Amino acid sequence: MSELRKDPITNRWVIISQERSARPSELRTGESRHLENSFCPFCEGHEDKTTPEILALRAGGGNPNSPGWQVRVIPNKFPVLESAHDLKRYGIGLYDAMSGTGAHEVVIEHPQHVLNMADFEPDRIQEILKVIKGRLIDLYKDNRFRFVMVFKNYGVSAGASIAHAHSQIIALPIVPWNIKVELEAARTHFLRKERCLFCDVIKQEFMTRERMVAENSDYVSFTPFASRFPFEVTIAPKKHACRFSDMSDESFGHLAFILKDVLTRLKVTLNDPAYNIILHTAPNIVGRPGMADYWTSIELDYHWHLQIMPRLTKVAGFEWGTGFYINPTPPEEASEFLRDYENYIVL
Amino acid sequence: MSELRKDPITNRWVIISQERSARPSELRTGESRHLENSFCPFCEGHEDKTTPEILALRAGGGNPNSPGWQVRVIPNKFPVLESAHDLKRYGIGLYDAMSGTGAHEVVIEHPQHVLNMADFEPDRIQEILKVIKGRLIDLYKDNRFRFVMVFKNYGVSAGASIAHAHSQIIALPIVPWNIKVELEAARTHFLRKERCLFCDVIKQEFMTRERMVAENSDYVSFTPFASRFPFEVTIAPKKHACRFSDMSDESFGHLAFILKDVLTRLKVTLNDPAYNIILHTAPNIVGRPGMADYWTSIELDYHWHLQIMPRLTKVAGFEWGTGFYINPTPPEEASEFLRDYENYIVL
Repeated sequence: MSELRKDPITNRWVIISQERSARPSELRTGESRHLENSFCPFCEGHEDKTTPEILALRAGGGNPNSPGWQVRVIPNKFPVLESAHDLKRYGIGLYDAMSGTGAHEVVIEHPQHVLNMADFEPDRIQEILKVIKGRLIDLYKDNRFRFVMVFKNYGVSAGASIAHAHSQIIALPIVPWNIKVELEAARTHFLRKERCLFCDVIKQEFMTRERMVAENSDYVSFTPFASRFPFEVTIAPKKHACRFSDMSDESFGHLAFILKDVLTRLKVTLNDPAYNIILHTAPNIVGRPGMADYWTSIELDYHWHLQIMPRLTKVAGFEWGTGFYINPTPPEEASEFLRDYENYIVL
Repeated sequence: MSELRKDPITNRWVIISQERSARPSELRTGESRHLENSFCPFCEGHEDKTTPEILALRAGGGNPNSPGWQVRVIPNKFPVLESAHDLKRYGIGLYDAMSGTGAHEVVIEHPQHVLNMADFEPDRIQEILKVIKGRLIDLYKDNRFRFVMVFKNYGVSAGASIAHAHSQIIALPIVPWNIKVELEAARTHFLRKERCLFCDVIKQEFMTRERMVAENSDYVSFTPFASRFPFEVTIAPKKHACRFSDMSDESFGHLAFILKDVLTRLKVTLNDPAYNIILHTAPNIVGRPGMADYWTSIELDYHWHLQIMPRLTKVAGFEWGTGFYINPTPPEEASEFLRDYENYIVL
């Protein structure tokens, strides 16, 4: 029998369909596909084929837009939003609109043509996290930007159009819907209990351990109670923190380890699936008139986290229509498979 | 330059990316694919290969589960929710859950192996609409069901797993997220203005005519101001009505014509794309303690409508993360292509 479950953070219901229960072998629809061209603009030596870099990590020194980098950030060649435009808000009859003001950057994560972050050394992942932190701090100085979304599309079915490992950063003049919903739920919970909702969720996950994947000194990974997708995994800091960009380099060392760990478990268990990673962090709290209290309370009630979503199932009319999801794999089963992932290594 | 637009009904922002502006020729990624097996259980003569029918339209008479039908409704063989289970609500620590109580039915829309509703006679579409109305009325008698979702997946990329033309009906013990958001926006608007939000939107669309596709005496079709997807089309009754199941047979005649019209325009302009159709109608207003006022106000403030969404673009990390969408085709351009669709007929 299936079960309806409500996510405590988004208040969104999902149907966990035990009848259709899908084990990894049924979900392994084959390895993730990649769009490969004969020429990759993201590979070292091809710096003149991309937009000029915003910054690059060059441990050995060297000139901008030349080889010798470890991580490189460039403006997206086809930006969905642009910072050169002044931010304008306007009405069109009863409709609301704004100029397409923002920023759209690409983080090239490896000089070589490596595709999956699961195959990176933890040190490299730590460097990438530090670079992303730097970009967040820099973009949040521009108070036209209310939120900066960092995400990764790996594989064609996750939406990647270039195979070479990279993430994207989009600075937005609004707080996006999904984040707003989380902020409001966190707020309501805090006003009632004076506790962080996410901290409470993490505590319950430690209590039952039914959905745990792994943990280290600073971070925990688990499959959420109301997972929308099979093998969805959340990574969160154990200690309350609202902003990714407040984390120390040392903390990023631990995050790099758990991120590689989760991606490796998914790769082995599900035969290298396509996936998305999404960073949920606090919005920009400066420069918004009359909302100082609201924004500063976020320090207490919001808790940053990463969502990792393998792309294994199709989203169809029901999901588009209702905004809620049918998940054929109970998260308790998914976490069990991920905990035992060594069994899936084919030697 | 791109533009951010807010949907007045869901309050969701979209990015209309004019730089990436995609014309039909770029979106025509080839005809919709279909999963075809050598044996189709939905074809006339194969009635014993499906679950026993709930009802069937048999103009010429005949026995249940035998040939001679025009439209046939059966329980889904793999239901995501089942009506045999008592509805139970329970908490698990801080989490909320419910039993998987509901109903899941399939409407087989044609005795022959025809795939696309665009190719149906309007009379047949009218009959299908009448059958769906009957199922809605029947399911809403069960006050465990708060909402009944009617939807169609056409083509593999829209989520169809059987090619033969059919729709699905899912009765839910909750009002789904997307509908709740619409109801709340409609309520807020009505409390402030004592007017229906959807009626105001339709009036503005008639005023500017920028996004109109077609109209007849009872219905209008247009591309929404904040379309999430290229060539998304809304069909709504011109006269205020909160419930699809309140419409007369005569009205369904007009709806059948405009539905066939829109599907034909999409088929011709976009080379037979995959698509979803979603019915947004009022929730069940009986049997909910202490909410009588809220539920009855829906008669005044909600307005049923159909959403038709061709599946042309991929949804990636950004959309999953933010809950908002990048649409490469401004709805003003999409409606222009759809209005001029005769130009696309290749003779």
